[in-house]
Amino acid sequence: MAQMAELDWMTYQSMVETPGCLIFLPVGALEQHGPHMSMNPDVLIPQAIATAVTDRLGNALVAPPLAYGYKSQQQSGGGNHMPGTTSLDGQTLCCTIRDLIREFVRHGIRRVVLMNGHYENSMFIVEGVDLAIRESHHIGINNLNIMILSYWDFVSDDTIGQLYPDGFTGWDLEHGGVMETSLMMHLYPELVDISKIVDHEPAQFPPYDMFPVDPSLTPASGTLSSAKNATREKGKILMEVCVNGIAEAVRTKFAPVPHVSVST
Amino acid sequence: MAQMAELDWMTYQSMVETPGCLIFLPVGALEQHGPHMSMNPDVLIPQAIATAVTDRLGNALVAPPLAYGYKSQQQSGGGNHMPGTTSLDGQTLCCTIRDLIREFVRHGIRRVVLMNGHYENSMFIVEGVDLAIRESHHIGINNLNIMILSYWDFVSDDTIGQLYPDGFTGWDLEHGGVMETSLMMHLYPELVDISKIVDHEPAQFPPYDMFPVDPSLTPASGTLSSAKNATREKGKILMEVCVNGIAEAVRTKFAPVPHVSVST
Amino acid sequence: MAQMAELDWMTYQSMVETPGCLIFLPVGALEQHGPHMSMNPDVLIPQAIATAVTDRLGNALVAPPLAYGYKSQQQSGGGNHMPGTTSLDGQTLCCTIRDLIREFVRHGIRRVVLMNGHYENSMFIVEGVDLAIRESHHIGINNLNIMILSYWDFVSDDTIGQLYPDGFTGWDLEHGGVMETSLMMHLYPELVDISKIVDHEPAQFPPYDMFPVDPSLTPASGTLSSAKNATREKGKILMEVCVNGIAEAVRTKFAPVPHVSVST
Amino acid sequence: MAQMAELDWMTYQSMVETPGCLIFLPVGALEQHGPHMSMNPDVLIPQAIATAVTDRLGNALVAPPLAYGYKSQQQSGGGNHMPGTTSLDGQTLCCTIRDLIREFVRHGIRRVVLMNGHYENSMFIVEGVDLAIRESHHIGINNLNIMILSYWDFVSDDTIGQLYPDGFTGWDLEHGGVMETSLMMHLYPELVDISKIVDHEPAQFPPYDMFPVDPSLTPASGTLSSAKNATREKGKILMEVCVNGIAEAVRTKFAPVPHVSVST
Amino acid sequence: MAQMAELDWMTYQSMVETPGCLIFLPVGALEQHGPHMSMNPDVLIPQAIATAVTDRLGNALVAPPLAYGYKSQQQSGGGNHMPGTTSLDGQTLCCTIRDLIREFVRHGIRRVVLMNGHYENSMFIVEGVDLAIRESHHIGINNLNIMILSYWDFVSDDTIGQLYPDGFTGWDLEHGGVMETSLMMHLYPELVDISKIVDHEPAQFPPYDMFPVDPSLTPASGTLSSAKNATREKGKILMEVCVNGIAEAVRTKFAPVPHVSVST
Amino acid sequence: MAQMAELDWMTYQSMVETPGCLIFLPVGALEQHGPHMSMNPDVLIPQAIATAVTDRLGNALVAPPLAYGYKSQQQSGGGNHMPGTTSLDGQTLCCTIRDLIREFVRHGIRRVVLMNGHYENSMFIVEGVDLAIRESHHIGINNLNIMILSYWDFVSDDTIGQLYPDGFTGWDLEHGGVMETSLMMHLYPELVDISKIVDHEPAQFPPYDMFPVDPSLTPASGTLSSAKNATREKGKILMEVCVNGIAEAVRTKFAPVPHVSVST
Repeated sequence: MAQMAELDWMTYQSMVETPGCLIFLPVGALEQHGPHMSMNPDVLIPQAIATAVTDRLGNALVAPPLAYGYKSQQQSGGGNHMPGTTSLDGQTLCCTIRDLIREFVRHGIRRVVLMNGHYENSMFIVEGVDLAIRESHHIGINNLNIMILSYWDFVSDDTIGQLYPDGFTGWDLEHGGVMETSLMMHLYPELVDISKIVDHEPAQFPPYDMFPVDPSLTPASGTLSSAKNATREKGKILMEVCVNGIAEAVRTKFAPVPHVSVST
Repeated sequence: MAQMAELDWMTYQSMVETPGCLIFLPVGALEQHGPHMSMNPDVLIPQAIATAVTDRLGNALVAPPLAYGYKSQQQSGGGNHMPGTTSLDGQTLCCTIRDLIREFVRHGIRRVVLMNGHYENSMFIVEGVDLAIRESHHIGINNLNIMILSYWDFVSDDTIGQLYPDGFTGWDLEHGGVMETSLMMHLYPELVDISKIVDHEPAQFPPYDMFPVDPSLTPASGTLSSAKNATREKGKILMEVCVNGIAEAVRTKFAPVPHVSVST
Repeated sequence: MAQMAELDWMTYQSMVETPGCLIFLPVGALEQHGPHMSMNPDVLIPQAIATAVTDRLGNALVAPPLAYGYKSQQQSGGGNHMPGTTSLDGQTLCCTIRDLIREFVRHGIRRVVLMNGHYENSMFIVEGVDLAIRESHHIGINNLNIMILSYWDFVSDDTIGQLYPDGFTGWDLEHGGVMETSLMMHLYPELVDISKIVDHEPAQFPPYDMFPVDPSLTPASGTLSSAKNATREKGKILMEVCVNGIAEAVRTKFAPVPHVSVST
Repeated sequence: MAQMAELDWMTYQSMVETPGCLIFLPVGALEQHGPHMSMNPDVLIPQAIATAVTDRLGNALVAPPLAYGYKSQQQSGGGNHMPGTTSLDGQTLCCTIRDLIREFVRHGIRRVVLMNGHYENSMFIVEGVDLAIRESHHIGINNLNIMILSYWDFVSDDTIGQLYPDGFTGWDLEHGGVMETSLMMHLYPELVDISKIVDHEPAQFPPYDMFPVDPSLTPASGTLSSAKNATREKGKILMEVCVNGIAEAVRTKFAPVPHVSVST
Repeated sequence: MAQMAELDWMTYQSMVETPGCLIFLPVGALEQHGPHMSMNPDVLIPQAIATAVTDRLGNALVAPPLAYGYKSQQQSGGGNHMPGTTSLDGQTLCCTIRDLIREFVRHGIRRVVLMNGHYENSMFIVEGVDLAIRESHHIGINNLNIMILSYWDFVSDDTIGQLYPDGFTGWDLEHGGVMETSLMMHLYPELVDISKIVDHEPAQFPPYDMFPVDPSLTPASGTLSSAKNATREKGKILMEVCVNGIAEAVRTKFAPVPHVSVST
Repeated sequence: MAQMAELDWMTYQSMVETPGCLIFLPVGALEQHGPHMSMNPDVLIPQAIATAVTDRLGNALVAPPLAYGYKSQQQSGGGNHMPGTTSLDGQTLCCTIRDLIREFVRHGIRRVVLMNGHYENSMFIVEGVDLAIRESHHIGINNLNIMILSYWDFVSDDTIGQLYPDGFTGWDLEHGGVMETSLMMHLYPELVDISKIVDHEPAQFPPYDMFPVDPSLTPASGTLSSAKNATREKGKILMEVCVNGIAEAVRTKFAPVPHVSVST
């Protein structure tokens, strides 16, 4: 069982005492993803990937994901003015990340992977991690290692070529598009209604952002590119390439653990 | 479908536009609950209750629950020194509550129920709510109404007498005890292993708290009273009394909505 | 002389250098307590108790009390909408507690008792203490011990039976009631005008809280139960049972000091 | 009775409803003031002055003073390294000021005097006031008026000439010197032990500050100039000149109140 | 004169009163940029561009730039472990942005362009802007419009093709590379020493980040791609394309101002 | 080259490794200084002085100055209601100071001089420094030494007598007056237009401050005393006395460095 929250504490404690035990913390968002999909892909997808990676690694756990993330930006998520999108202030997210790492460290954990599923979270995760590492130094802990990743960065150029035969417009415009929809169709088909997919040209944005947002720049669907080419098979391929890549990355960076200190 | 996160944004928007639409926000914790149970009852139980209440009310939604709460206290949760217990600083929790209410208000929501599942959260929920209401006044919104409740406060004296024939020692000592275990056996039997229940006398605490905690005061199991008398039937009864009571309370306080202003 | 503030600094320094020297910090509030009483019982009572305990212990001091506390809640203090009630944000109170403990630690103090006189303060005191202990670890101090107590928790069941012959409705409804009024009559008779006591049934509250508060749920007097049975004698008894119990608790938990490190 | 905390809430409410009602908030410190004096002059003196001014004005109240202030600086208070000196972080003090003004405003108060007794508090009081006024604008209140003063600024040059016939070295070096000691001898003779006054030359400081402080620059007594010329008579004169000046200033700035709006 | 700081206040005031007056706030960093260049290109370049754009627009000013930015990230700036790189916490940067916009708004400004010169600043600028706009709503100001841009986003694909005939590796790897070095050679030739340019392959990074950083992944020079092909002419071309593009964008988004409200 | 920002990082690193290397951080403001002068004297003057001192010391650097400071106060800067004056919240300034010192310490710097050019900054610099030193202790660094100074405190009484033959009204009223104007005429003559100097009597203020400010108390020019007697020669004299005094102070307090630890 990979989910930390589903373990009783004694089982958790014995896992933590295993040398090199690692915790994945999925960081998601509650954000509109078009009329054809639920608002939780940014949390469900990284949680599913973390769980699959954990199953392969053996010595790892998935902590309860963060269901709310940083404010949606127009050029990567449609904008935070959209109904349903429900976001945190930057400082709130930073402090949440910092607090949770502090607790994992107290448990004896020295390896954490922050698995991001929402583009806008990235820098606030970085800041939360920096605050946590700084604080760990204050109590003399110098062997805390943290990986931050966004799962889509593990989709190889080959896979991109395969999935987007007509050309790829970049991850930012993939909001509610082929990638996320395919993954959701594969993982949670009941949360996708392909009959509601809106077919539209990719959104076009100027090389700057205006605040308050001009809502007319976001396609009426809320998606930034159309999901019409999404399929379950593509979702399966994406899942595999991400899980493979992340498992490999984690094995490489966190590899052999001859002896690990778990005392605080 | 009662889960806000599982709606697409257009469906959500149309629900919010319904006069009197209400959102439940379950506030939980990741906290050890003895060797016989997973660490997530404080979030799963209020989420389940909120979902059941929502099913009855019709015009309500359950937002994604907060999976992490305030620091476990020894006399109500064993203490925050326990492995597995993973908590937030008070200010982080307050700001999370404030931020989410701010967003619901932006969507047009004016009725929120904070459904608490972790005793130690209470005052930080109160503070987060106070900050949110204060801020809503800054933008001229004066019709925001928020209910805060802890589900166990709806267990009637009659039910207590029925479930605890040998006497009831108070909700604080119920940590990992008959109530929570019975509810989990009813709701998530796969997360309870009754063979691991430790039978022990209720914990005894002096009328004060020491920091740092003296770990020897917490029973070795981490539970504050024994769950040995927990049963699935008791869980069902508890569920019913809570769902009934909360549905009634919500109907009473948020009753008729002749016309509601949803403009921000 | 038990009051820290009334010592000159050299006398204070020599007391702090005494092994095991302890500081009481009374944490109160400025809160309406009915038409028959001043608004400061929550600070005067714990200060008086701390002073009396200090007189018995010999090796202790009372720091200047905190005159303002966390926001009054309707079910325990009538609500923060009441005129006169003057409260701090949660974070302000937490930081005040943290800052003062940091300073006592700098002086060489390693034993602090937070004596609470206002129910709503409790969790913010806990958080302030947690922040202070965390920070003390950052400078390598690991022998800081802090007790948190609310004085009424030392009133024994026997005493309750004696003082409330017609039944006891719980400490929360005692706001401005028999306990506080009796203690004030004993300690500060000039601040009580028994002719203004309003005789009313105990307040009745539902098992949840609404924000903003519905003022009609708070009795017009602001008290949650009537003080009509308050007497000076009861105040004296309450004072004795609290002072005895707290002195005993402090002696037990902070007992022998063969050698204490006071260096920072 | 001038002390807000000693009123019952109904009396307070009726006073607040009087047009032009004003609240004094004394802001003090807990700080060493030499071997001959208690550590609370910075709070007792402004409280006494505020009380005396209130007695003359009639339509004013003194709120409970803040007993802790900002960190003592070497050139005005000996330095925050001294034992007994117990200080708050700047942000904590700012937020305390802001919170209390917010509450007075909620009560209907539109006139507040911050009476400072500790030099180092000044700028943090300013910031707290600025935050409070900013927030009051957020709720549409534009008639909040706040005076900030330090009582010694009301000592006229004539009085200085009279009290310091051998020359005056400035208020900053008056820490624990003639002014504060005389005032305490007049107001609280039991808190001064003139036999312990150390006679020394005024402290001499370079035109800069070093952090951490070089303790050798602070006279061993902790006072920055000698109190040997302090007398009760001087205290009485100082008291009169401050009370007269402040009463006059308040009358001038807050003068006629034909009609005042007290609604929030 | 385009620099706000170089105006006297009366001249500034009269400019602000001009309908549509706009302020550019360059947001930079103090960050190592290789052995061949000073550490201030991230602030000097956006300031120079803002000044040039201002000269064309006529009705605009450049506020003093922020000389310090968010922490350098390894994949875009070499990492914050590098000597010389001097960064702010995220919250500090957010609050700085918020505070300055609040002040511009007080002056009557309703149009602000945040001109970013340091990749890592982007999200903290966004958050600061969001906080400022939120607060402006609290005082009833609803016509504040803010543009956020990073100057390199205005370099067209044509220009990229022209300047990088051997292929372009992306803006992130341009740290201390051809773009920044060329611009500095054009703008501040005295701050570039081309003899010290290190010729190396572009840095290669995995699709994730580790904290603490593995310093060996950053090229020894600190640059992420070599500046060996930088020339003054390229700098001039880059300058022109950026100034043209930004001037055009500003004119488009902030165009006609028939009547603007400058009252607060 | 004295400017830290103009060094490449390798040169900076080698300087920092020199025993006793010292960094000056000028802390200024953007504040109206009358109709005859730019709004940046508070940052330009301390930067110029720091640069001159650095030239004499040899082993020191000037970090990029802070261009924005704390809110202008009426009695020392005309008040923060003035157009053009652009200020930070206190906490923002404190955190900026803290963050920058943290970074210098990471580089190996143990000697920092905060050179203030804006009266109102003083206490927030003190607080930022205190927070930085506290944090340095958390990582076991105990040899960090910080000097805080305001340059005008180095103007000797002799110089004052020479420059103000008709009497000196105090540094607070020197806002935009003879001292600052003379220094700017000497250092940046292009930023002063003496034809616009307004000749007026020194401002007169009561011994208290009102918030919101009464604008009529600030002279219409924004200056608190007239600059009509300012001359370039006086500027040169002031510059010399400040540079001499500060160089001497730095040499005295930070003198011989037989061996310094630069490891973090």
